[in-house]
Amino acid sequence: MQTIRTVDWSPDGVAVRIIDQRRLPGTFVERDLTTLDEICDAIRTLAVRGAPAIGVAGAMGMVVALSPFVDEPLARFRERVRSVAATIRATRPTAVNLPWAVARMLRVAEASADSARGVVHALRAEATIIRDEDRAMCERIGKHGLPLLPDGARVLTHCNAGALATAGIGTALAPIYLAASAGRRVEVFVDETRPLLQGSRLTSWELSRAGIPVTVIADNMAASLMRAGRIDLCIVGADRIARNGDVANKVGTYGVAVAAHHHGIPLYVAAPWSTFDPATPDGGAIEIEQRDADEIRCGFGLLTAAPEAAVHNPAFDVTPSALITAIISDRGVHRPPYDFAAISVPIEAAVA
Amino acid sequence: MQTIRTVDWSPDGVAVRIIDQRRLPGTFVERDLTTLDEICDAIRTLAVRGAPAIGVAGAMGMVVALSPFVDEPLARFRERVRSVAATIRATRPTAVNLPWAVARMLRVAEASADSARGVVHALRAEATIIRDEDRAMCERIGKHGLPLLPDGARVLTHCNAGALATAGIGTALAPIYLAASAGRRVEVFVDETRPLLQGSRLTSWELSRAGIPVTVIADNMAASLMRAGRIDLCIVGADRIARNGDVANKVGTYGVAVAAHHHGIPLYVAAPWSTFDPATPDGGAIEIEQRDADEIRCGFGLLTAAPEAAVHNPAFDVTPSALITAIISDRGVHRPPYDFAAISVPIEAAVA
Repeated sequence: MQTIRTVDWSPDGVAVRIIDQRRLPGTFVERDLTTLDEICDAIRTLAVRGAPAIGVAGAMGMVVALSPFVDEPLARFRERVRSVAATIRATRPTAVNLPWAVARMLRVAEASADSARGVVHALRAEATIIRDEDRAMCERIGKHGLPLLPDGARVLTHCNAGALATAGIGTALAPIYLAASAGRRVEVFVDETRPLLQGSRLTSWELSRAGIPVTVIADNMAASLMRAGRIDLCIVGADRIARNGDVANKVGTYGVAVAAHHHGIPLYVAAPWSTFDPATPDGGAIEIEQRDADEIRCGFGLLTAAPEAAVHNPAFDVTPSALITAIISDRGVHRPPYDFAAISVPIEAAVA
Repeated sequence: MQTIRTVDWSPDGVAVRIIDQRRLPGTFVERDLTTLDEICDAIRTLAVRGAPAIGVAGAMGMVVALSPFVDEPLARFRERVRSVAATIRATRPTAVNLPWAVARMLRVAEASADSARGVVHALRAEATIIRDEDRAMCERIGKHGLPLLPDGARVLTHCNAGALATAGIGTALAPIYLAASAGRRVEVFVDETRPLLQGSRLTSWELSRAGIPVTVIADNMAASLMRAGRIDLCIVGADRIARNGDVANKVGTYGVAVAAHHHGIPLYVAAPWSTFDPATPDGGAIEIEQRDADEIRCGFGLLTAAPEAAVHNPAFDVTPSALITAIISDRGVHRPPYDFAAISVPIEAAVA
């Protein structure tokens, strides 16, 4: 049921083609990224965003950034690979999928012993695998989450953990897409998700496009909808899941979790295995990206706060595992007590 | 410590002079309202807003709207008074201060037996009293609330219940102004308060202007600040307080209340006696104003949600009294169990 291509190769394979999400919902534009600067800029400015999607974009971006240097001597090229990897990894600190994907790419580069050209070839294959795995993981998350969505379910989600956040049908939205495909009635409420409005701009766009009823609310309206009995369950995505099940996700997720807990409404977190980070013991160890004050002070090109006022603008918050009913991954539905110490995808290197 | 005049007579007395709050924080403009249409438009579009301020503006607005008709026969003029009152009262449904002020004015009009000119004279005197009482109520709320603010207090507020919401120094912000005047250190965090951003546009403006440190956050960041131990107490205003202490206030107040409760942080509601409505038994009986979808869909002049998506945009929510630590009025600090059945200001007529 894939309908949009959030991140993919361009048809000729020389670029990473993304949907420029800064322009949605007003304008649908695809952009071809062909240089390291363009890749990093697209990730940093959220032209491509969503933890799984930036993992895929980072992996593909390494290929695009390294392709012009296939004639370099192998040793020098290997240094370049490490430098490019570090630059891409540094674009955004919180989501673990990006360092995870970059670490996979680095391992492939170190393992290919022939020429720079051969390394690029292997890297392209690996990036394609990462993309395909991401798609498959979305499908599996959808299947595992499907039984949690009864017919007629009214679901609250936050931010965008949909097709636009992955190479596939999304994480939090995957069960919703599959439920709709299966003919179940499902209705979505989405927090607009200040400051960058990924909920109102992106989630409302992709769900409307798929014909799924969606209602946009301001972030501060979720709690009163819950009190009015209009929300049956919440599903959100994740940017990093610590060993103990604490979840870093878009700022505001924690407030949704507290409100859901207060009203006895289940809160599910949906994420592919690449989001789990056993090297991080708990949420307190997760670095939270602080973004520019102007996203709040004049995020819409207007002055929306007094210039003298300070601004606090973390991009993420941490929801403690005690508030999470279950975590839906591509491997199944995980219930408390959570312990993700022994996961088989070797991402330890990614966060070293 | 009054520094701004949110709503007052123009110097020649023929107009209601307001600060046009739609233009803040970028531009400070005062506007003179001289017709019924201008009065109603200013209240409806939130050029003047805040429950106490629209009560004062409504009362003064009646005078301005009726003044051209001082030569009418008394009976016809009395009909006009009732019609003008009904029109002004209908501009916004949730705050009780507006019908309360209008009812006071109506009583004065009915009691003045001489001429239309004499009635207008009496109405002008009454509107001035309502303005002066509002100022005095703000001061008393500040004094009653002051002991709740220890030196160094870090206060979260929502929306704007400050000088810009009253004819005086505000309700929720009154104790903060008095604490700062008394030399206490006090720091304010304010939710930006989507969709119309009264917190970031107005509260940050008036506190900065007064030299009080203020930090703007998106609404969805309050809960994580509480979890981080960075908020000592919350103070918010109210648009209507039911007999049992349930409080209707700007949408998002309920989410703040739930989060404060979860973290064991006190939540205070500050309001003048004109906000108490013993005719309403509990929050369930309060009409909640629904506002235009475009405030969320394109509130910044940009398309911020898919045009096909629905929008839910209530202007207020109800916080049940169980989540409210205390209510600070001009008469004192009220603690649970709340019972506001016997209040001496006769506002019953106002909501009939």
